[in-house]
Amino acid sequence: MRKILIIGAGKSSSYLIKYLLDKSQSENLHITIGDLNTESAKRLVGNAKADIIHLDIFNNESRVAAVKNADIIVSMLPARLHIEVAKDCITYKKHMVTASYVSEEMQELDDAAKSNGLIFMNEIGVDPGIDHMSAMHVIDRIRDKGGEMILFESFTGGLVAPESDNNLWNYKFTWNPRNVVVAGQGGAAKFLQEGQFKYIPYHRLFRRTEFLDVEGFGRFEAYANRDSLKYQNVYGLEKVKTLYRGTMRRVGFSRAWNVFVQLGMTDDSYTIDDSANMSYRDFVNAFLPYSPTDSVELKFRHALKIDQDDIVWDKFLELDLFNPKKMVALDKATPAQILQKILMDSWTLSEEDKDMIVMYHKFGYELDGQKHQIDSTLVVVGEDQTYTAMAKTVGLPVAIATLDILNGKITTPGVQIPITKEVYTPILEELETYGVVFNEKEVPYLGYNPLNL
Amino acid sequence: MRKILIIGAGKSSSYLIKYLLDKSQSENLHITIGDLNTESAKRLVGNAKADIIHLDIFNNESRVAAVKNADIIVSMLPARLHIEVAKDCITYKKHMVTASYVSEEMQELDDAAKSNGLIFMNEIGVDPGIDHMSAMHVIDRIRDKGGEMILFESFTGGLVAPESDNNLWNYKFTWNPRNVVVAGQGGAAKFLQEGQFKYIPYHRLFRRTEFLDVEGFGRFEAYANRDSLKYQNVYGLEKVKTLYRGTMRRVGFSRAWNVFVQLGMTDDSYTIDDSANMSYRDFVNAFLPYSPTDSVELKFRHALKIDQDDIVWDKFLELDLFNPKKMVALDKATPAQILQKILMDSWTLSEEDKDMIVMYHKFGYELDGQKHQIDSTLVVVGEDQTYTAMAKTVGLPVAIATLDILNGKITTPGVQIPITKEVYTPILEELETYGVVFNEKEVPYLGYNPLNL
Repeated sequence: MRKILIIGAGKSSSYLIKYLLDKSQSENLHITIGDLNTESAKRLVGNAKADIIHLDIFNNESRVAAVKNADIIVSMLPARLHIEVAKDCITYKKHMVTASYVSEEMQELDDAAKSNGLIFMNEIGVDPGIDHMSAMHVIDRIRDKGGEMILFESFTGGLVAPESDNNLWNYKFTWNPRNVVVAGQGGAAKFLQEGQFKYIPYHRLFRRTEFLDVEGFGRFEAYANRDSLKYQNVYGLEKVKTLYRGTMRRVGFSRAWNVFVQLGMTDDSYTIDDSANMSYRDFVNAFLPYSPTDSVELKFRHALKIDQDDIVWDKFLELDLFNPKKMVALDKATPAQILQKILMDSWTLSEEDKDMIVMYHKFGYELDGQKHQIDSTLVVVGEDQTYTAMAKTVGLPVAIATLDILNGKITTPGVQIPITKEVYTPILEELETYGVVFNEKEVPYLGYNPLNL
Repeated sequence: MRKILIIGAGKSSSYLIKYLLDKSQSENLHITIGDLNTESAKRLVGNAKADIIHLDIFNNESRVAAVKNADIIVSMLPARLHIEVAKDCITYKKHMVTASYVSEEMQELDDAAKSNGLIFMNEIGVDPGIDHMSAMHVIDRIRDKGGEMILFESFTGGLVAPESDNNLWNYKFTWNPRNVVVAGQGGAAKFLQEGQFKYIPYHRLFRRTEFLDVEGFGRFEAYANRDSLKYQNVYGLEKVKTLYRGTMRRVGFSRAWNVFVQLGMTDDSYTIDDSANMSYRDFVNAFLPYSPTDSVELKFRHALKIDQDDIVWDKFLELDLFNPKKMVALDKATPAQILQKILMDSWTLSEEDKDMIVMYHKFGYELDGQKHQIDSTLVVVGEDQTYTAMAKTVGLPVAIATLDILNGKITTPGVQIPITKEVYTPILEELETYGVVFNEKEVPYLGYNPLNL
């Protein structure tokens, strides 16, 4: 029996656990799931065979005992909590898999992992994860036939599926709402366009979107991520002229979201003293000039220059933003926290709602003096609120990588992310059997010169 | 002889030194001026009688020797450098005067100052300084006759004098340019309007101005300072309904400045790698989308929605912002540093230019069931680039306070700011003899309800 320890049975672990349980007999796996709260694990395991243990990772003794008792550890903990587990994995010589960004502390374990022959696979969820693998899969193929990359753009969005898309924003919270409210904050977005560095300040971010059409799913828009250059060296794209990473939304979302940004409602840097006793209407009014007579509605429209026939207006009405009776009821909250609460009234998924993951890559390259472009898109729709597209695209790559490590398909040791053929080839192949399939097509290379001038 | 030590003979010390030198015989003063670089002190002293010493305040021995040898110390150092001098003043029982905000470290010396009978007078320049004194002068008068304050607004601007005002921005750098470029950054502006807390994010700050008319000087505008509530308790204004502090500019400045804010050119939080080799035009283009054909000018106009007949456009042309030949020539500079350099080409005062300090207070109060308002304005115009309005309004109050302490007109010990009658009465009276005169008038109280609805 190969012993797998999964730490954390939250939202994103459903498919991970299901995959491994389904294979436990054929692959001879013994699965242990540890969590502070075992309810979710029990629900996910159902009648299948797995050990479910109460595990407090801050308790050294029980954490070490659990790690010692496994051959490989899958940590689905929040990113900042991996490190103690990772150190145990070095001490007791266990492989480790996470879907999180490689922290500095994690990177520092690289030498120790290598010298012990251990694989510490990270960033193997959806974003980061499937984005790395699907991008490198195409980039390596282009290079193998002698092409040189000149453009790479990559976009991901966690959205609501078309069949559950029934509000004017075409958006619901399919993941941590807080991250959505503060998205883009913390500094200017930086990217490369045709050899020029470009910068967008936060307050312009949602007005500098681009459109993306996905076959069968219509049009999306994307705003720039903060650091598009993060993986430039990792992907070997030092010479590309265009490098852009972004977040996808349905068309019109960003223009409306920008209104919140403009007013200052997404600010998370200060608290409002009397927020507990504010109505939604009072909250909006705090960002508008005082008037003894003018309505909050008209001040809002005037401040944002919203014409009387602009559809964006209906989006704010739909959120009940001007309601003088609904209370914020949060003590000393930041504007971002209050806005999150207001949005959660409208954007929380109901039990039958389905989510959707969309990914869009553009690869521009030169081969034999000709410019080419490949566009590659992925859409995954969830089944329900347990088996979400998010859980599927995060959990399946984690699960497959775990088994591939046990089965010796992945052998290179060290702290790593899934950008090598050894890793992405078997995983992407298997993901296809689960419906995680990229739709690739060759398109004319236009870059940012659509008229070819 | 009463011995005065002035530390720092920079830009703002000209009037301070002249005032004390002029009084040295009649008041029996011995003046010592210490600075790292004695050139400026020598120029300011001329043929008058004063000791000029080379003083490195980081050298304990020479700093202590200088402090010991004086009866009172005037520190014109940057605010962060006062503290070692202040500690010496405690040790050797000397009074101290500064024009800087009271730091936490300075405040901690309050008990020691009091128990030694020492006066540590701070914030006695123009802003802070004359603003405190002139405000409390009126507020105390209102209270003395039984009035209750309901509104206080206060605005200050360091500007170019009308006779030297010859650019389209009606602005030149009369003080630290860097502070102008990053003004308003670091968090939302917060203030009170008719009992409601209001918040303005940085990127809206320059579009939420109000107008102020100063007799004989025309119209100004003002944008909100970050924390208008800073002196609410100090001034005893806990019950006011409106509390607003702002910075004055000539009308139109803020709307044009907002363009820099919108584009992200005032950002000081990251550096641009290749800034050394950028032209001004390249710099502007870094904040605009790539285009193989469209001009930087048109992209700029489009991004900011600047109509072809909008006068704001000429302000940018005047700065030579689109020049492809003028180089930034600053290595790894932040956008704010680059913008500062570009602006200094156009906004640096020439030798014959005069500066101007403008201050505008509004006091609203209730007396016998009636609402009243007093508006109080001050304009001071400089003489030249040595005897500036800034140096006059910073230096004279410092100098007068110094002499008033020596002459026992100011006697209350402790770390303080000039908000008591004992302090502001003699200083404001004497300032008037130097042309620093507030023009006060009663106006109808309108608050933010101009139609009285």
